[in-house]
Amino acid sequence: MENYQQLDGIFQALADPTRRAVLSRLGQGPASISDLARPFDMALPSFMKHIRFLEGSGLIQTHKAGRVRTCAIDKRQFAAVEAWLADQRALWEGRADRLEQFVIAEQDKAK
Amino acid sequence: MENYQQLDGIFQALADPTRRAVLSRLGQGPASISDLARPFDMALPSFMKHIRFLEGSGLIQTHKAGRVRTCAIDKRQFAAVEAWLADQRALWEGRADRLEQFVIAEQDKAK
Repeated sequence: MENYQQLDGIFQALADPTRRAVLSRLGQGPASISDLARPFDMALPSFMKHIRFLEGSGLIQTHKAGRVRTCAIDKRQFAAVEAWLADQRALWEGRADRLEQFVIAEQDKAK
Repeated sequence: MENYQQLDGIFQALADPTRRAVLSRLGQGPASISDLARPFDMALPSFMKHIRFLEGSGLIQTHKAGRVRTCAIDKRQFAAVEAWLADQRALWEGRADRLEQFVIAEQDKAK
């Protein structure tokens, strides 16, 4: 019915306020793990779990140079979410179209 | 930073292929629990957990008339997801705008 298997992991990743806040920060440009962690009152291992979860979902990519790991957003996964939402909207609108066709057909019968 | 607390439950609800399939079906119009359950090779109690999860997230509403419980989609929660995505996009585009301004400023300096 759908070929969006990666959506499980993407939606799971989005279902947490810390992870969404990290994505919003990265939407403004790449950042190091330590810069990303600073606003959160959270132990680094807990924060790293969120980063790994985001990386596993494909929503971010990380790259290590020396001792610094930098994170960047990967917009392609957002596009998958937007495509799914657009599909849902097409279903609703298809339904509205069918309702409209029905009403027009009934009006034609009544003439 | 964000005032989308209901997004946790919404994204959690969307992170499952059965629940997404139910939403796609309901996008075509309301349906009874038994009609919704039919395509799934799943015991009814398991299926009902998915329905309750969707109802709890606000993505669907259910209504019981006699022995039949009917489910319908609630588009307002989809709008919350779309608003969050639009906010993210605005962050990226704001960033693109700033990058563009920087490039223009550097070009002006070079003249």
